[in-house]
Amino acid sequence: MPEPMPESISEPIPVYQDIVEAHERISGFVHRTPVLTSVSINEIFDTSLYFKCENLQKVGAFKFRGACNAILSLSEEERQKGVGTHSSGNHAAALSLAARMQGVQAHIVMPDNASEIKKVAVESYGGIITFCEPTLEARETGMAKIMAKTGCTFVPSYDHPDIVCGQGTAAKELIEDTGKLDIVLAPVGGGGLISGTSISTRGLLPGAKVIAVEPAGADDACRSFTTGKFHPSVNPQTMADGLLTSLGKLTFRVIRKNVDEIVTVSEESIVGAMRLLWERMKIVVEPSGAVPLAGILEKKIDVKGKRVGIILSGGNLDLSKLPF
Amino acid sequence: MPEPMPESISEPIPVYQDIVEAHERISGFVHRTPVLTSVSINEIFDTSLYFKCENLQKVGAFKFRGACNAILSLSEEERQKGVGTHSSGNHAAALSLAARMQGVQAHIVMPDNASEIKKVAVESYGGIITFCEPTLEARETGMAKIMAKTGCTFVPSYDHPDIVCGQGTAAKELIEDTGKLDIVLAPVGGGGLISGTSISTRGLLPGAKVIAVEPAGADDACRSFTTGKFHPSVNPQTMADGLLTSLGKLTFRVIRKNVDEIVTVSEESIVGAMRLLWERMKIVVEPSGAVPLAGILEKKIDVKGKRVGIILSGGNLDLSKLPF
Repeated sequence: MPEPMPESISEPIPVYQDIVEAHERISGFVHRTPVLTSVSINEIFDTSLYFKCENLQKVGAFKFRGACNAILSLSEEERQKGVGTHSSGNHAAALSLAARMQGVQAHIVMPDNASEIKKVAVESYGGIITFCEPTLEARETGMAKIMAKTGCTFVPSYDHPDIVCGQGTAAKELIEDTGKLDIVLAPVGGGGLISGTSISTRGLLPGAKVIAVEPAGADDACRSFTTGKFHPSVNPQTMADGLLTSLGKLTFRVIRKNVDEIVTVSEESIVGAMRLLWERMKIVVEPSGAVPLAGILEKKIDVKGKRVGIILSGGNLDLSKLPF
Repeated sequence: MPEPMPESISEPIPVYQDIVEAHERISGFVHRTPVLTSVSINEIFDTSLYFKCENLQKVGAFKFRGACNAILSLSEEERQKGVGTHSSGNHAAALSLAARMQGVQAHIVMPDNASEIKKVAVESYGGIITFCEPTLEARETGMAKIMAKTGCTFVPSYDHPDIVCGQGTAAKELIEDTGKLDIVLAPVGGGGLISGTSISTRGLLPGAKVIAVEPAGADDACRSFTTGKFHPSVNPQTMADGLLTSLGKLTFRVIRKNVDEIVTVSEESIVGAMRLLWERMKIVVEPSGAVPLAGILEKKIDVKGKRVGIILSGGNLDLSKLPF
């Protein structure tokens, strides 16, 4: 059900200079991930694709960038009281490690049906887990209790300028390494990655197109973008489990301002793109990370003869449950 | 059955300067592959591991380095007549692509039971395949016929100075990127990679240990090294299909001179090491490439508190037949 966006939002959208500052802040702590190319994939599509490998980032996902930026932006008093988030995914692990690296305690509220792999990851990075029922309400209530008790700072997983700017450093590095690109692609879920990507691209390559790619079974961002009204993500159906969430207020505004197009892709194409990345490039990419290449596979993005940057968002998945 | 090595071999062993020259020759054509690290793997073993990712090399394996060096070392007359090899593995694909990139024709003799994937790879890189029965004799006879007909130059897959020096450029790049290392590890099959690795390490880090790692089910190199007499590989049993071959005459000499130790590992450890690399580092590594880390998993190599370079040799395997 579409909901109109409030007209009164006046908080400024982050600008490229904010990403430059975020990059200075985090660059001693994050991997400068490699940009990989593949002769054989380029031949298939008659193009030049540059893959920014955030699957090779610490914690296996770009989420570590935003988490680091948020932690490094805390005041000394805030650092003492710790940080918290409710998340069952990469953000919880990313925040736990980023916090530990700075001597800050992370509190994670996690649904009790979260996978064992995710629990172990958060614990191994020193996050303190509080389990709750698997509803948004229970997560928010659980978080509020911990914040009341510890005074910790809530770090949202995408809808915050510090997070958006941290995520944008991946595209900044990509463009610094490749030079001119005609198109930059990233997946869209909550919109933190594509927002940061779009700000870096507008800042460094004003003429390049920024295209977001989304699973057809979770096409709320596409519908919100097309109609100009916020559509929440309701009962999304996709294997790309990093892209299930709704856009945030900030990320929706950034996307409307900076993104040229949102393209949707089928589950079959996501598997095909994953397989291509694993087989030809020898890297482990999770379904969410393969979504942009799926858009090229489906010929929904015209890449012929162009230079195209692609953010491979992450590589976290259960190896015993592969779709091939 | 051990065979004494001929005492009369006087052909000089390549030296580090030969690898420097090979590197100048090939560096415009090969990927300078990234050196990756993993916080979590380092924590498990209380060490600092630096993985040189030759699985991300063109053709998915270090073999492309040696093939490029061999092609670029041809005279103009030899280039005109093409190159040939008999191989069912990575070398055939590597030679085909390296030849095509220089406008040289590659002739590949391949057993008719080679996998469809390998045939397609060679063909896609422009190699002309001649099928033969799956015996060494049939392969050699097939090759001799093609050489007689075309005048092409035979490029062996490991036992040749050009190949050894090309493979050694991976360790050269690794050490240039990491600085001082205490130990350098590589798998050993025919010995081309470990030979080149050992020459680069002796050249750049005379104090570092060079350790080769081999599957226990294909431990001919270990037996040859320990006894000082050549043991051929007879009926090897391992999933590490890149390490089935016997040492060559040249590579055995280089290994005896430069390598400090050969360690053997179980199949179970190879799977464990593969899984660690895939899950924690998000890269696709074939069983042969996981063999050195398996040696660390088995605690057969003391890495505690040390800086250890590891050559991840390749990432070519059938994704529908994973051991996990």
